[in-house]
Amino acid sequence: MAGDLLDGVTSDPVRMGWMQGSPPPADKILLASRADHMRFPMIRWSYSNMRQFVPSRRVAAGDESKALERAIDEGLGQIRFVPLNADEPMSLEQSLTQAFTDGILVLHRGKVVFERWFGVTGPETRHIAFSVTKSFVGTLAEMLVEEGRLDPAALASDYLPELTGSGFGDATVRQVLDMTTALDFSEDYADPNSGIGAYSAALGLTPRPVDYAGPIDLASYLPRIGKAGQHGTGFTYRTPNTEVLAWMIARIERKHFAEVLSERIWRPLGMRGDADLIVDQAGTAFAGGGLNLRLEDLARFGEAMRLGGLGVIPEAVVQRATHGGEPAHFDRNRYPQLPGWSYGSQWWISNNNRGCFSARGIHGQTLWVDPAAEMTVARFASHPTAANGANDPLSLPAWAALAEALSS
Amino acid sequence: MAGDLLDGVTSDPVRMGWMQGSPPPADKILLASRADHMRFPMIRWSYSNMRQFVPSRRVAAGDESKALERAIDEGLGQIRFVPLNADEPMSLEQSLTQAFTDGILVLHRGKVVFERWFGVTGPETRHIAFSVTKSFVGTLAEMLVEEGRLDPAALASDYLPELTGSGFGDATVRQVLDMTTALDFSEDYADPNSGIGAYSAALGLTPRPVDYAGPIDLASYLPRIGKAGQHGTGFTYRTPNTEVLAWMIARIERKHFAEVLSERIWRPLGMRGDADLIVDQAGTAFAGGGLNLRLEDLARFGEAMRLGGLGVIPEAVVQRATHGGEPAHFDRNRYPQLPGWSYGSQWWISNNNRGCFSARGIHGQTLWVDPAAEMTVARFASHPTAANGANDPLSLPAWAALAEALSS
Repeated sequence: MAGDLLDGVTSDPVRMGWMQGSPPPADKILLASRADHMRFPMIRWSYSNMRQFVPSRRVAAGDESKALERAIDEGLGQIRFVPLNADEPMSLEQSLTQAFTDGILVLHRGKVVFERWFGVTGPETRHIAFSVTKSFVGTLAEMLVEEGRLDPAALASDYLPELTGSGFGDATVRQVLDMTTALDFSEDYADPNSGIGAYSAALGLTPRPVDYAGPIDLASYLPRIGKAGQHGTGFTYRTPNTEVLAWMIARIERKHFAEVLSERIWRPLGMRGDADLIVDQAGTAFAGGGLNLRLEDLARFGEAMRLGGLGVIPEAVVQRATHGGEPAHFDRNRYPQLPGWSYGSQWWISNNNRGCFSARGIHGQTLWVDPAAEMTVARFASHPTAANGANDPLSLPAWAALAEALSS
Repeated sequence: MAGDLLDGVTSDPVRMGWMQGSPPPADKILLASRADHMRFPMIRWSYSNMRQFVPSRRVAAGDESKALERAIDEGLGQIRFVPLNADEPMSLEQSLTQAFTDGILVLHRGKVVFERWFGVTGPETRHIAFSVTKSFVGTLAEMLVEEGRLDPAALASDYLPELTGSGFGDATVRQVLDMTTALDFSEDYADPNSGIGAYSAALGLTPRPVDYAGPIDLASYLPRIGKAGQHGTGFTYRTPNTEVLAWMIARIERKHFAEVLSERIWRPLGMRGDADLIVDQAGTAFAGGGLNLRLEDLARFGEAMRLGGLGVIPEAVVQRATHGGEPAHFDRNRYPQLPGWSYGSQWWISNNNRGCFSARGIHGQTLWVDPAAEMTVARFASHPTAANGANDPLSLPAWAALAEALSS
């Protein structure tokens, strides 16, 4: 399928006809066995329906949840900004399809002021959050740190003896939290032979080769990751760090990670709906990117962080999650669009004078909080390019323009 | 694993240690690729966690649901009855583990009077209902009949031209509803070469042989079922009838079966939680047995039927579902424990003077309604034997004793 000829409008999954009809026509059926669910343009359907392709586990919400208040300002769709890679301004509305947006919610002072849905994505859709999941994991880990149950100065292998001798063996919990571990693992989504490929095979997110004899779950795979370099000297984004974090959390809590997430965040924050967490064949959470949730629940998480944790997440945790990481550790060449940023506690931190911080996942999943503007943006997308460098030129100026409009 | 040596107590999934730990020990991991999820004693864990093994789709509940009222009478556990195949009486409490019960709720006049949970099953568990699913499908089909949108006298192939030339081609909708179709399909769960084996392979509920080249979804498989005999002369329980019904429903409603079930039953009846519906690779519902739901939501469905449909299900539909089928069509030799019964509209009907009717699924899934006693029993189980003949000797007298106790 000539996916590279399709733009945000022509790749609309309803227009493409994916999985429509009873049954869908043969050429419109997306098969996990062909990895259709992970290839553009099919991802425009699959990212809103991941549990139809892979095993999952419920992250239970409580029985009580209040709907978000609405104070819609349709004029916001017409605010204009200049993309980072362009000379001509465009409107927010125009930018949405260009960013392959599936859904967006903008909250100002806790009320939804702007809301758009595209394709097969709606308010009740559980859309995959990819690495936005990591910020939930990091927050939970920091909560255990705050309670004295997880020592950031201890070694990861103190909690997980299985990791002794692996690349994680002599890394501290803090290094895992801030992704300053030095691992023999490449996270290049465009390279099929990268570490992320072996990781994905172990996870089972995509079909394995017929003659595959490697690990079939994360706990078997993670100890095989070696070391390359010296821990603690720089931030390098590697998803296995998050899997190790979630593994520690489950080990400490003696519960499945999905239960911890439900009890410590989903229920107390009054999330509107259960989430779907992708699991590997051993039932272990795909904590590095497997959370599928309602967009408004992602916005709720952002609001909780913006408002100091709402008594659910300790303020010290919020402080570390939104002001952590070491800018000197950040790779300026790799992230030219994020100058002065840092990565800490599994959050992306702007260190700008507005206090902006973000949770980011491939293909455009975004939680963006601008405390100065009392604004939270939650966005799901299915951009053909995994790396967020592809949509940042549109998105970052859009959030800035929104913040300015809401602050005036 | 010597499953045949295990009883209801020793097969307890917590005691067995399935899937406990982060990660579980290698010999405690249940793998879909080995069909662990469909074999005793592993089913005592898997039937409460099916979405971790197979693709599924959400059946959405609405935002508002009231908890069932409780009026617990612990004395009910001590009521005694004589099993059909025994001389000595036993207590209800004793019978529960003997029937490999995972959960049971007894409602009297709409309030929960008795409640027990075992193993890994609890109030929030979505346990597989197996063929109890069929009674939801039959009820939805009768609702369309009542609205004049599905003609019981028409041919199935009038709605689904794909079935022309198949065993279903010249069967009427009513014959499909009441399972009086004459198909070349054996539903012997103990025979790996039966029709149910090919059906299961198409469905993908169990792993397919490596060299499998058969259909990979229900819509490709169902037209391949041939005819054997004459339609309308007798009731023979065959699950593909239900798949055809659900297919017709989806075709008429132009929606996924999960959406129809949500809109027409789950939301209006105020179900407490979303359900998980197993789907095949084309995303089509496994409507013959793939519903996973909270036990209290199953009880709610029974209560709705007992109370004339509660304005959600038309009374005429309730009447047909609870008084339908032709006793003369019922196979007395096959169901010696169900004398005088009939099967109609995908419900099991006792035709006794109490008006009892039931939804039944393999391995002990049961919804039992005794209108005379104003009683509804909902039970999940993971009995080692699929056929309900294995637990009826315990269950039928238990329900009768409960009804008597609640009526006195």
